[in-house]
Amino acid sequence: MNGAVTIALDAMGGDRAPDMVVKGAGIALQRFPHAQFRFFGAADRIEPLLAKLPRLAQRSSVHHTDEIVTGDAKPSLALRTGRRSSMRLAIDAVADGEADCVVSAGNTGALMAMAKFALKTLPGIDRPAMASFFPTRRGESVMLDLGANVECDADNLVQFALMGDVFARTVLGLLQPTVGILNIGSEEMKGHDEVRAAAARLRAPDAPLRFHGFVEGDDIAAGTVDVVVTDGFTGNIAVKTAEGMARMFSEFLRAAFKHSLTARIGYVFAASSLRKVGERLDPRRHNGAVFLGLDGIAVKSHGSTDALGFANAIGVAVDMKVNGFLDKIRSGVTALAALQTPAL
Amino acid sequence: MNGAVTIALDAMGGDRAPDMVVKGAGIALQRFPHAQFRFFGAADRIEPLLAKLPRLAQRSSVHHTDEIVTGDAKPSLALRTGRRSSMRLAIDAVADGEADCVVSAGNTGALMAMAKFALKTLPGIDRPAMASFFPTRRGESVMLDLGANVECDADNLVQFALMGDVFARTVLGLLQPTVGILNIGSEEMKGHDEVRAAAARLRAPDAPLRFHGFVEGDDIAAGTVDVVVTDGFTGNIAVKTAEGMARMFSEFLRAAFKHSLTARIGYVFAASSLRKVGERLDPRRHNGAVFLGLDGIAVKSHGSTDALGFANAIGVAVDMKVNGFLDKIRSGVTALAALQTPAL
Repeated sequence: MNGAVTIALDAMGGDRAPDMVVKGAGIALQRFPHAQFRFFGAADRIEPLLAKLPRLAQRSSVHHTDEIVTGDAKPSLALRTGRRSSMRLAIDAVADGEADCVVSAGNTGALMAMAKFALKTLPGIDRPAMASFFPTRRGESVMLDLGANVECDADNLVQFALMGDVFARTVLGLLQPTVGILNIGSEEMKGHDEVRAAAARLRAPDAPLRFHGFVEGDDIAAGTVDVVVTDGFTGNIAVKTAEGMARMFSEFLRAAFKHSLTARIGYVFAASSLRKVGERLDPRRHNGAVFLGLDGIAVKSHGSTDALGFANAIGVAVDMKVNGFLDKIRSGVTALAALQTPAL
Repeated sequence: MNGAVTIALDAMGGDRAPDMVVKGAGIALQRFPHAQFRFFGAADRIEPLLAKLPRLAQRSSVHHTDEIVTGDAKPSLALRTGRRSSMRLAIDAVADGEADCVVSAGNTGALMAMAKFALKTLPGIDRPAMASFFPTRRGESVMLDLGANVECDADNLVQFALMGDVFARTVLGLLQPTVGILNIGSEEMKGHDEVRAAAARLRAPDAPLRFHGFVEGDDIAAGTVDVVVTDGFTGNIAVKTAEGMARMFSEFLRAAFKHSLTARIGYVFAASSLRKVGERLDPRRHNGAVFLGLDGIAVKSHGSTDALGFANAIGVAVDMKVNGFLDKIRSGVTALAALQTPAL
């Protein structure tokens, strides 16, 4: 694998687009020198940016469209009326086999709806899920679903477990990731029917992944498992609760260091070490929510990210492609099917 | 109100019982000099501790029992076999009118089961909920349910909203607390049927509380609303996710300050300001999960707390009693009933 991938980019999605998209591609090219880029969006805005990055320009093509999906567009409306949007054309490039993966920092709901429509769901997967990875006390973990499916049955959760396992192997590079289902206690009888039924199935000795059992909310940051599986309602609330806590802590900390002259002096001494903590928690390092379960690779970058964050989202897409994410899901689905029959 | 309340205490619940229970009562007595205490548990262990606190001893009675509910006892078993336990006798004191409230740092599930059985649910409340308060960027907020009810319908959520509102008024002293329902987006059409139906009812102009609408996970730490309402599955996971994040941050911070000699020097200068942050987040200040919806006041102290934390849990119980929590719930239920009829 030499990273000879073709990446379709929605050049118009995100707060700082197309600037950060083009610059992000430039950074990604340093990591993947054999990559090709297809930019979809306003050519008169993309081309001047590319002109400043001649090495990137050499490996890029620009596909002009005036249409964009706005950040507040309803997914159903975007799906019906956005057929010539930069987002949709970038997705279509993957559907048509002209690109290996698509990355967009645009409207999440619209991207999900369009990607689901154009790429279709993988056979054996009932519903795609949104996954992301985040820093923990032990390293990094993956969580899914983060909001694509408000209600999930046991089959959905079992499939999410499989997809999270393959994602952790192909993107985080873990050989045998551990998988846990989020619950309100670790004992087998805890929680509602769906989590209990999913756990029972994953406990089967021939399950195609390392199932740890139930985990609780505080296990997320502890990094107790590499993959945290939950429904989209709980997952969305857990991940946003964690984000809110991170913001509260940095605010309290900033206030503490401004509190007195001695505290300011203390900051001067401690700054370099504190910066290391900041880097470990830098959201740009963990950028890229992924729609798993589609017959194609689609990565959502955070809308407010910068070029470095966008480059990391491209990196997630390339890792999935190069490390055979889709094929691994297909063989996992077969293993799950063999497993599910006796459990019914 | 002069704080002339009688408090039943499970002297044997919690990791450091009965020591921290007796000392905690001693601290609480300073805040509530007219309070009376009834200790339930091993008299030979409680009495020597009381002997060291003569002012407390004067206002206390000891009710001996050898039986205790262990921390790992199943709630159903504790309910059947623990009728002479210190926890149960303390609850019974409230049920029999001999005490105004009960505080225990023992087994949460057992306390909930016993309190529900002995105190009964308030008329108009279908299911009790577990609530707690926590620090936010703006001050303090209340969240419920934290795990008593894995699945909740719209009626439950509306009742939780009422109970949270009254709790914020009687314990946090807020005049007009704002109430939000936790969801995965703030728009009206977001989320599952239960949250949408509950929100529709609370949006009624004559609803007996200030309904803000939906809030998201990051609104918890932001303090967007004073009362966050959710089902027990989501609430338990959100609160534990937040705890896990808090632990991760303090660990990263400790590591950063130990990272180098200059960082250690920085800590010396910043220590006093950092301690202020620590005090603001001190879990002992926010100790006391409360079972709301019972016909009696029952507060659960954290099992690992110390005397100061236990004293704060006693403070929550006394505030609820003195500020008329139960009567306010009763009149709120009447207002809700008037509201619910047209909504059906």
